[in-house]
Amino acid sequence: MVDEERNEMVVTPWEVRGKVDYERLIREFGTQPLTTELIQRIAKFTGKVHLQLRRGLFFSHRDLDVVLDLYEKGTKFVLYTGRGPSGPVHLGHLVPWIFTKHLQDHFKTRLYFQMTDDEKFLVKDDLELEEATNFAYENALDLIALGFKPENTFIIYDVQDIDLLYDLALKVAKRITFSTARATFGFQESTNIGWVFWPAIQAAPCFIHAKLTGENVPALIPAAIDQDPYWRITRDVAPKLGYYKPAQIHCRLLPGLGVGGKMSASEPETCIFTTDPPDIVKRKVWGAFTGGKPTVAEQRRMGGDPSICTVFQYFLFMFEEDDEKLAERERQCRAGEVLCGECKKELTDRINSFLEDHRRKREKARNIIDKFHIKR
Amino acid sequence: MVDEERNEMVVTPWEVRGKVDYERLIREFGTQPLTTELIQRIAKFTGKVHLQLRRGLFFSHRDLDVVLDLYEKGTKFVLYTGRGPSGPVHLGHLVPWIFTKHLQDHFKTRLYFQMTDDEKFLVKDDLELEEATNFAYENALDLIALGFKPENTFIIYDVQDIDLLYDLALKVAKRITFSTARATFGFQESTNIGWVFWPAIQAAPCFIHAKLTGENVPALIPAAIDQDPYWRITRDVAPKLGYYKPAQIHCRLLPGLGVGGKMSASEPETCIFTTDPPDIVKRKVWGAFTGGKPTVAEQRRMGGDPSICTVFQYFLFMFEEDDEKLAERERQCRAGEVLCGECKKELTDRINSFLEDHRRKREKARNIIDKFHIKR
Repeated sequence: MVDEERNEMVVTPWEVRGKVDYERLIREFGTQPLTTELIQRIAKFTGKVHLQLRRGLFFSHRDLDVVLDLYEKGTKFVLYTGRGPSGPVHLGHLVPWIFTKHLQDHFKTRLYFQMTDDEKFLVKDDLELEEATNFAYENALDLIALGFKPENTFIIYDVQDIDLLYDLALKVAKRITFSTARATFGFQESTNIGWVFWPAIQAAPCFIHAKLTGENVPALIPAAIDQDPYWRITRDVAPKLGYYKPAQIHCRLLPGLGVGGKMSASEPETCIFTTDPPDIVKRKVWGAFTGGKPTVAEQRRMGGDPSICTVFQYFLFMFEEDDEKLAERERQCRAGEVLCGECKKELTDRINSFLEDHRRKREKARNIIDKFHIKR
Repeated sequence: MVDEERNEMVVTPWEVRGKVDYERLIREFGTQPLTTELIQRIAKFTGKVHLQLRRGLFFSHRDLDVVLDLYEKGTKFVLYTGRGPSGPVHLGHLVPWIFTKHLQDHFKTRLYFQMTDDEKFLVKDDLELEEATNFAYENALDLIALGFKPENTFIIYDVQDIDLLYDLALKVAKRITFSTARATFGFQESTNIGWVFWPAIQAAPCFIHAKLTGENVPALIPAAIDQDPYWRITRDVAPKLGYYKPAQIHCRLLPGLGVGGKMSASEPETCIFTTDPPDIVKRKVWGAFTGGKPTVAEQRRMGGDPSICTVFQYFLFMFEEDDEKLAERERQCRAGEVLCGECKKELTDRINSFLEDHRRKREKARNIIDKFHIKR
């Protein structure tokens, strides 16, 4: 009973709990699976199929086909994604950003990136607005460290840039009843009125390119699937405002290091922050849940189970570019040829090497962060 | 039954219906009556007791005594009032503004004036945002025409100046649950989510002086009593944010020209807009509901009833400064010495004379309106 309760899947923009069944999410959210045909259509523009597409990390979409049809006929799109700055960035946050940069580089499109300091203040009891605003700045450094180009990247800090968003948000909000918002987001009697309004603020950047430039083009949103409810209501409203419905391409959530792949910023041992120093990374990976057996002898004899191993998932998501090497690691694990300690040591080294480089770029980003602000 | 329904009193920020019982509002809203003692305390600073106090047009308050205590000990206050710009300004809107200017002149305080174009867009189905914003500008001309001094008057246009309000509104909104907002404002399932959030935007100017200047002083809000629900929730939140509770001084609503004193901008014959040309004013006053008798002979014999006469109310509210002359008019009416046509003609002349002067000042205001903008 307790186990059943633990495993119950909950996926909302503010909470992801239990074992996530992505097939079921496609059915329940009413999205489309990302087919091989669509992946090939993307590859026409990007060349090689990106790791995150090859390995099914992006697995679902809405209207990606429509966006590609338009693009092939000469109508560009803009990319839009964002971050709720309630703490430091962890590796899971970087996954869709890395893919977003890949799309930006190859489709030569603008990215609008929303830092939702207002939302995080509204939904986190103990977070002060000034703290959220400060995290927004710190998190922007992580984004910039990934190599985005300022000429095509426009960061919107909600509180600071509300004047750009508010008129659009009002026009969206007028067309969303409390009843619809409650059904979509599960609002309660105790939900604060800022939170109730806030979905309109997340909708606004879908239309900001049209507002600022007069170019009415669709937005394509690469993001984890837990954000989908926002786009459902935005898609209903968009045509009434004379805009394209925002399209989405949904990714899985990078599993955490805890049992069952749980990751939560509120349980810091389950995720690796970009600011974690090497010894902390080592400790966290060392404590990770794997598919290994209780004893070395048993593992040598029976092999491990990479399908439930969080360490293997980190190689799959970010730390093994080479598909053949990844397959070989999987085979060796199942055959008992490699022990968990070896994988953990290798992953620790790769993460620390990545983070060392990332932090260097992150510090450099402080000098250029203003060039990325939408009000530059 | 129908009559009973018609007479049922409804007083909300968006609707005033039926015969308004102000004594009952004091009880139901939980405000304090404006006593002779308080009026005398005001008069210590203003000299003569203002017409609107003498005649009981301002009749209720919250914490006016606290504000006067503080003022006497050297802590100033700021005035705050506003306007929902959904159409042209009518004479009823000018009543509290005239009194606000009286307070500003004598207490030498700042006035923050909020133009709620966002609210009107959210609550009026057929109003476009750009229309509301345009009305905000046009309505500001009416305010300025009353003679406010730019050095002490700061107009906030919600959409244009949202960057000044948003952080304060978020801090208010986080502390108001949907449940509280529904109980206070009667929100429905069909209410849009912008409207649900909006009370936090109306609360923000209570604290903007403290935010902008660092001077933590209370706001005193002169306004019609239908706005009281906003201040009830703002007063609950203020201490949690480290601010004074906003104080209020509440006025009656200028009756309209229709039966039972109904006035509604949606029924333009029942109210006189500042932009109405003389012949329209004449027609509207001519059609006004009075306390007269069906025939001249009857009126000469039995007299009229000024207590139900909308024309008499206009003299009382705005168009007869002299108390003795007003009393004499009332006596003459009851005695049958004056007929409705005479009163109507006199009121028409006074209104048209006032409006001619007002419109001249209103056109001049176009040249200086920018000096009143909070972002000057």
